[in-house]
Amino acid sequence: MNFTQDALVALLRPLAVVGNYDGIIRGVSALNVAREGDITFFSNKKYAAFVENSQASIVLVPENFDGSPGDARAYFKLTNPSWAFAKICAAIEREQARSAPIGIHASAIVDETVKIASQAYIGPFAVVEGDSVIGAGARVGAHCFIGRGCHIGKNTCINPRVTLYANCQLGENVIIHSGAVIGSDGFGYEAMDGIHHKLPHIGCVIIENNVEIGANTTIDRARFAETRIGDGTKIDNLVQIAHNVRVGRDCLIVSQAGIAGSSTLGNRVILAGQAGVAGHVNIDDGVQVAAQCGVSGNVPSANTLRGTPAMSLGEANRFYVLRKRIPELFRRVEALEKKSQQPQ
Amino acid sequence: MNFTQDALVALLRPLAVVGNYDGIIRGVSALNVAREGDITFFSNKKYAAFVENSQASIVLVPENFDGSPGDARAYFKLTNPSWAFAKICAAIEREQARSAPIGIHASAIVDETVKIASQAYIGPFAVVEGDSVIGAGARVGAHCFIGRGCHIGKNTCINPRVTLYANCQLGENVIIHSGAVIGSDGFGYEAMDGIHHKLPHIGCVIIENNVEIGANTTIDRARFAETRIGDGTKIDNLVQIAHNVRVGRDCLIVSQAGIAGSSTLGNRVILAGQAGVAGHVNIDDGVQVAAQCGVSGNVPSANTLRGTPAMSLGEANRFYVLRKRIPELFRRVEALEKKSQQPQ
Amino acid sequence: MNFTQDALVALLRPLAVVGNYDGIIRGVSALNVAREGDITFFSNKKYAAFVENSQASIVLVPENFDGSPGDARAYFKLTNPSWAFAKICAAIEREQARSAPIGIHASAIVDETVKIASQAYIGPFAVVEGDSVIGAGARVGAHCFIGRGCHIGKNTCINPRVTLYANCQLGENVIIHSGAVIGSDGFGYEAMDGIHHKLPHIGCVIIENNVEIGANTTIDRARFAETRIGDGTKIDNLVQIAHNVRVGRDCLIVSQAGIAGSSTLGNRVILAGQAGVAGHVNIDDGVQVAAQCGVSGNVPSANTLRGTPAMSLGEANRFYVLRKRIPELFRRVEALEKKSQQPQ
Repeated sequence: MNFTQDALVALLRPLAVVGNYDGIIRGVSALNVAREGDITFFSNKKYAAFVENSQASIVLVPENFDGSPGDARAYFKLTNPSWAFAKICAAIEREQARSAPIGIHASAIVDETVKIASQAYIGPFAVVEGDSVIGAGARVGAHCFIGRGCHIGKNTCINPRVTLYANCQLGENVIIHSGAVIGSDGFGYEAMDGIHHKLPHIGCVIIENNVEIGANTTIDRARFAETRIGDGTKIDNLVQIAHNVRVGRDCLIVSQAGIAGSSTLGNRVILAGQAGVAGHVNIDDGVQVAAQCGVSGNVPSANTLRGTPAMSLGEANRFYVLRKRIPELFRRVEALEKKSQQPQ
Repeated sequence: MNFTQDALVALLRPLAVVGNYDGIIRGVSALNVAREGDITFFSNKKYAAFVENSQASIVLVPENFDGSPGDARAYFKLTNPSWAFAKICAAIEREQARSAPIGIHASAIVDETVKIASQAYIGPFAVVEGDSVIGAGARVGAHCFIGRGCHIGKNTCINPRVTLYANCQLGENVIIHSGAVIGSDGFGYEAMDGIHHKLPHIGCVIIENNVEIGANTTIDRARFAETRIGDGTKIDNLVQIAHNVRVGRDCLIVSQAGIAGSSTLGNRVILAGQAGVAGHVNIDDGVQVAAQCGVSGNVPSANTLRGTPAMSLGEANRFYVLRKRIPELFRRVEALEKKSQQPQ
Repeated sequence: MNFTQDALVALLRPLAVVGNYDGIIRGVSALNVAREGDITFFSNKKYAAFVENSQASIVLVPENFDGSPGDARAYFKLTNPSWAFAKICAAIEREQARSAPIGIHASAIVDETVKIASQAYIGPFAVVEGDSVIGAGARVGAHCFIGRGCHIGKNTCINPRVTLYANCQLGENVIIHSGAVIGSDGFGYEAMDGIHHKLPHIGCVIIENNVEIGANTTIDRARFAETRIGDGTKIDNLVQIAHNVRVGRDCLIVSQAGIAGSSTLGNRVILAGQAGVAGHVNIDDGVQVAAQCGVSGNVPSANTLRGTPAMSLGEANRFYVLRKRIPELFRRVEALEKKSQQPQ
């Protein structure tokens, strides 16, 4: 990494530059640990006190930020400092990725019926079964298993050690992290005389464009028809998505959340960490579900839920404040009872 | 897929057929999205409104179902429509599986001391260490690692990318999904002067017959002796089963549930999603634990628990209704207090 | 396994031996299932009733234990019976491990720039990318993927099927269990016009010495700088550690717990199973967080928390007792209201 202030101005086009740093920027860092030669950014108010004392040579700040940098330091004023910072990181990342290999590694086992478009990559020890299709520029990492009849869209990146069971379809620009399992059988049994008889799962999983799926996340295939993740939705690590679930566009599903079978999420839904959604439930567009919340019924659009079982945010907040005062309430009721029993 | 109505009558033996469809059934589908040529089923009352308007050519319905199909459609009356539908899916699945390979893939690394029965399959890049035994018709998927001294029973199917540490025993007709890890060391340490010293784990994991284990689920080996999963128990994705746990027969353990060390589950226990069981706890036969519930004490047979920490279902239901009315209760107590302070 | 009582006395150096067993100890077992020829231990008071009736030939007991063994049995009195028992298990484990291979398996793919110290092991089908360093005596199991520029310290053991993304650093004597994913991208997006734009993650993960990481656990790389796990910390299975988290020394993080981005844990913190910590939170030294607890704010040193959202242990315990009596409280308030409306 090696940027002058001028090169960074050209990359980020700040609204204003306050102060001046005429050395070389060699590292990215956080406000409180940055040293001379580092660039950093300020956007979370929680860390405001760190700006003035930061040793960073350049700090990206919001346009309404007031302070002034010390000698030989600069502030870049920007509409979105975090995103500007991300552009620098992306430049570093591109530099690192420049040498990424393409083609089929000699050790990979790829069925002769697989169609592989140009610029695709299939890594060491990957296995790709028959009738699958790998799009242009797509990457299948080392040790991946791609079952029969899968479709992997253009520029999709599958990191090492991912499993796609047969007949899964991934769109374009999808990212799947290591250890994810897509298309395993749903948890469906028919109980007869106390024995759980397995229901066949002949459906598939469809992942639309621009989806990201975290490490060790599991998405089950449909009993029949499809489990579907909508365009632009981002799924964190260790999330469970059960059979026949439908997730809309641009949702965020945070780590360790789970969605039980046949439930539906609209667009722009947020499930925070460790939240759970019961089966056969409908969650409308824009709903936000707090961490560890348990949703067991339908939720109309744009609600925010909290608690287990879920309450509206207002109900939950009131309850959580009063919860600690319940011992006091018992004492107050007892006092009233005593008083009411005294002769007037 | 290609069934006439007569072929389906022969396969499913319905109690009665209402109406008639003389085309070809080419697909399985859900009530609300089915088209002409599809077969579907109705069993969850939630979807009753969809039956009449379904475009499916044949609908499997419960024997007491009243409606009548439109022209060129048929209803099959059945004791268990869901299970009948599963039989059709199973027929499709058998068709797809017909070409599954057997034998040892040339790329697999199998120790010369491993005993492999007839009709078994060991997939590409699988590693099977010494003294293991692979039963007749068993399948070890691509990229599996089978440690030293494992026993894999007849017709057991291990999907790709599964790890069995040394000395694990799987019964017959077991299914293990991708990413599962069986036999890793339990989380056991002895704290001395603030340092956690690892306890050796020299026990094993025993999985009895007809168990299914979901994707990325983890089952730890015993400190000594065994961790055991009983016959017919079904375990979903991302479940944690700690060291020395004993799970009985025909239990259902739903996704993201966890059981801490040395706890015991009886037979036909159900742990719903994200439920947790503390260590050294005893849960008797037939207990049902609701989603996200936390069980920290012994539970006698046939109870249903809900909440964290767990309450009986009745207690929990009463509490969850009244919980939202606690602000009101505070106001009512305040009103009583004011009144009681007024001169009479 | 084959120990005389004298050999065990030499290994464990008990404070006292009560009774005598002159046969051969051939197995380790639990109090209630042990047979003649087995050795076992007693330390959890819950199992006190099992000691007297145990068929074990030798039982390790606390020094203040009173009972006397039957004929041809012995009790060893020890300061820490559980740890003494662990020493026997460790001896058995060493015996089993004696034949562990070293060197690079012929099927592994190791970049020519990788530096491998003496006595290291790289297993079948492992992939080690360029510029990585493997310390003396370190073990990289079968099917592991070690990205570019990783450092693996001396005597660190990586079990089969583990992924290290590029630039992760593991200290010495680290143990990583199968299926763990270290260094995947953090869950960070910048929302613009309802679209979640991926933030590059160019930071790394640093795992200090003596850390153990459970099966299928995920630890994300930092957005920039580092995610760090401190010396001696032990992490169970299926745990999520998000980007930029810092965990101190000698912490215990139990299965299915999760820590959101940029949070900090001090030293000797305990997160019990399924606990969750929100992002940008600071948890001081010695804090204990109960199972399924949800922590969303900073926690000063040495507190114990319980509940969601977290309460102090005292508050939580009082609330959980009274929670079941809330229906009664409603009835009592109603009675007071009726009484207060009666003519005096």
